[in-house]
Amino acid sequence: MTPDEFRAAGHQLIDWIAEYRSGLAEGPVLARTEPGAVAASFPSTPPVEPVELAKLIDDLERIVVPGLTQVQHPMHYGWFPSNASLSSVLGDITSSGLGGLGISWESCPALTEVEEVVCDWMRQLTGLSDQWSGTIHDTASTACLVALLAARERATEHSQIGGGMPSVAQPPVVYTTEQAHSSVRKAALLAGYGGDNLRSVAVDGTDHGMDAQHLARQMADDAGAGRRPAAVVATVGSTGTTAIDPLLEIVAVAERHGAWVHVDAAMAGTAMLVPECRPLWEGVEGADSLCWNPHKWMGTILDTSLFYVRDVEHLVRVMSTNPSYLRSSTDGAVTQYRDWGLPLGRRFRALKLWFQLELDGVEAIRRRIRRDLDNARWLADQVERAADWELVAPVPLQTVCVRHHPAAGMSGEELDRHNLAWVGAINRSGDAYLTSSILDGRWMVRVSIGVEGTERRHVEQLWARMRAEAIAAS
Amino acid sequence: MTPDEFRAAGHQLIDWIAEYRSGLAEGPVLARTEPGAVAASFPSTPPVEPVELAKLIDDLERIVVPGLTQVQHPMHYGWFPSNASLSSVLGDITSSGLGGLGISWESCPALTEVEEVVCDWMRQLTGLSDQWSGTIHDTASTACLVALLAARERATEHSQIGGGMPSVAQPPVVYTTEQAHSSVRKAALLAGYGGDNLRSVAVDGTDHGMDAQHLARQMADDAGAGRRPAAVVATVGSTGTTAIDPLLEIVAVAERHGAWVHVDAAMAGTAMLVPECRPLWEGVEGADSLCWNPHKWMGTILDTSLFYVRDVEHLVRVMSTNPSYLRSSTDGAVTQYRDWGLPLGRRFRALKLWFQLELDGVEAIRRRIRRDLDNARWLADQVERAADWELVAPVPLQTVCVRHHPAAGMSGEELDRHNLAWVGAINRSGDAYLTSSILDGRWMVRVSIGVEGTERRHVEQLWARMRAEAIAAS
Repeated sequence: MTPDEFRAAGHQLIDWIAEYRSGLAEGPVLARTEPGAVAASFPSTPPVEPVELAKLIDDLERIVVPGLTQVQHPMHYGWFPSNASLSSVLGDITSSGLGGLGISWESCPALTEVEEVVCDWMRQLTGLSDQWSGTIHDTASTACLVALLAARERATEHSQIGGGMPSVAQPPVVYTTEQAHSSVRKAALLAGYGGDNLRSVAVDGTDHGMDAQHLARQMADDAGAGRRPAAVVATVGSTGTTAIDPLLEIVAVAERHGAWVHVDAAMAGTAMLVPECRPLWEGVEGADSLCWNPHKWMGTILDTSLFYVRDVEHLVRVMSTNPSYLRSSTDGAVTQYRDWGLPLGRRFRALKLWFQLELDGVEAIRRRIRRDLDNARWLADQVERAADWELVAPVPLQTVCVRHHPAAGMSGEELDRHNLAWVGAINRSGDAYLTSSILDGRWMVRVSIGVEGTERRHVEQLWARMRAEAIAAS
Repeated sequence: MTPDEFRAAGHQLIDWIAEYRSGLAEGPVLARTEPGAVAASFPSTPPVEPVELAKLIDDLERIVVPGLTQVQHPMHYGWFPSNASLSSVLGDITSSGLGGLGISWESCPALTEVEEVVCDWMRQLTGLSDQWSGTIHDTASTACLVALLAARERATEHSQIGGGMPSVAQPPVVYTTEQAHSSVRKAALLAGYGGDNLRSVAVDGTDHGMDAQHLARQMADDAGAGRRPAAVVATVGSTGTTAIDPLLEIVAVAERHGAWVHVDAAMAGTAMLVPECRPLWEGVEGADSLCWNPHKWMGTILDTSLFYVRDVEHLVRVMSTNPSYLRSSTDGAVTQYRDWGLPLGRRFRALKLWFQLELDGVEAIRRRIRRDLDNARWLADQVERAADWELVAPVPLQTVCVRHHPAAGMSGEELDRHNLAWVGAINRSGDAYLTSSILDGRWMVRVSIGVEGTERRHVEQLWARMRAEAIAAS
């Protein structure tokens, strides 16, 4: 495709995207498609003759769009917000258009240095000290894996360059809570620690934050038995209830054993753009690594996960490669981000953050975050005032976790079925989407507020609908 | 940013990208920027007030573009081709514009199912049997890590769910050659095998392919000593010289020990679009996993790395998570790609491949590949005919590896210095870019042909320049 053909097609596509974004609130939130239906709409063999963009746009409308769950819909309250701010989309378009290749500083110096700049801007904007150095990973799952690899190598005196983990006489141990994201267990298992060496630290019964005293006892027990307390993964804003692990206490406990502390603030990091939220991660400066996802609430288009470490030298020692065809005369003077993570080749992701910060301005982003925090507090108030509704967890951020009690004394599986019934009815209607989740062994419903287009009136509308459906299901 | 603002800004950006792509051959290939210069052009503190797109476009031209090494330049012969076909850029723009979120089938059914469709189309287009199931990873580095994790768990009877690698009495062992990509060693180390358990299999002195007899001896020795031959990483198209490991023989040897065979065809996979190249990976059907990068020679915009496995059930067992908030009523009936790789959240990457296949057509891509193969053969012929030039490796694909001999008898470090001198002169000029690399302990120069815009006249121009600079440096 020539640049001129691209110009013509690109204009068509921009118009189509603008129109799509303008109208997406008209359709259902949850995709109404049967498993396999999208795939069955495609020919089973690859296309042979080239087609015009118009044909693809037709396919997008006919096949793809009906197969999308609308996470940009103002009535989407599922999972966590996954905003895709159009300002950052422009940055992503620029990244694709430039077609840069980040395999070393030399292969694309601007890619590396703009990433350094925006990671540092984001550090400042979230109130972190200059002891942190940042990079962009794809997701928090990858960031957690990298952190646990760094921790593993610190705890095993760089076993990877010798006999590897099979040569480690006493196993390194990882600590987290049952409220941690599923990617933590996955990362620990993939990093080779083994499920037997992954401790589930107890949580507080009310706020579901990590019990630092229990952590201290578990670590002491492991150390006493000759095992190596290697890493704690602390969560700031858990996936279930946005629970906050007490970093200050955790860091103090971990320090006694030289254990690595990784802070998973995938969701809550965005909140740190507003100074009044920063007490939530008090103690973060004592951690070893930290991750948060601008691609969630902040709205930078996927995939943009910020990863900060304090000891870059250690990270690079664990993650580096230096074969001859990647050597350059500038080694040492420049940052080689390939040595900070898993993939060698990198996209120019920094443009997404740069464009969003410049085109929207951080104050507009902060206003939106405060709006969402207010909306969540408003909904939590309504729930607390309603006799038949239960607020099942505190609301430190923008997620409100609820259960409806249709009759005094209903509990157990009967209550589960009731709550799954009303939330299922809402989700199937397409008018809104909420996620059901298990907390303390029982189903509850998460209302995760924070889509760019979600205003107070949408939350009011949701609350009215929740009450109506809950009564209908009773 | 509203959809209307996006529309206006998007049109500006499309025009700018089209113009940029039209003119990039006018500038230097290698970025002419000093370390730190790009970063120093940015304010050290984040922007406060929003700006117009025009200001960012000005910054792009003034700061970013001079900091880009032009891998789309027709005189770029460095590393491997990293084409960014504008047809696939349109697919990427669509992906960003839609703002979908792939964390489960339900969160974006179309994202999952279009990925299944295009992975299957690509399977057919490269002549693979229907025993393979595919997904898209970011890079071949990640694919190799996933493969070695799957291999580790097979060889250790799923140690990850028990005591992990520290509980493994006899270490699992990985086999590859010194010609394998640096990411193989990195993946083996990160997967916890340990450097001591990574075997360097000898290569053939002429074509640098793996010596399967040596592999057989090493595996037998390890097995005899109680260690576990776990995985062979075979390369089809090595980074240095596009060497081809003999898959048929390797698979036969690995089978004796139940070792996993991962095929790294990151570069050569594109060649398999043309049937006449497929004998190069004869035996591939006996492997367990396979990766190749459409984001290299084929030209799909980064990051698009195809990963195929034969035993999906095993892969999912190793990589899966299933917490309550990700459960859905469709589990089992649909593909959950989160359980095929590392990250939970996925972009809608399949659109890049879909758009490229539809808009360019596979025949046009095949013509370009055959053109590049011809150009490489032409250059190799010139080198072989020139008395003072040496072709240091066979040319099975599109990379020509050379050394200039200014005088009979010059060798060792003196010869190294001479070859680094002429290639350095070309690279510094900005007129072309070549990569120098070490082969058998001595420096050589790689001419990697395959940029979309590189025609025969560009290769002729390069060959003239190489001869001139080599003489000037003598």
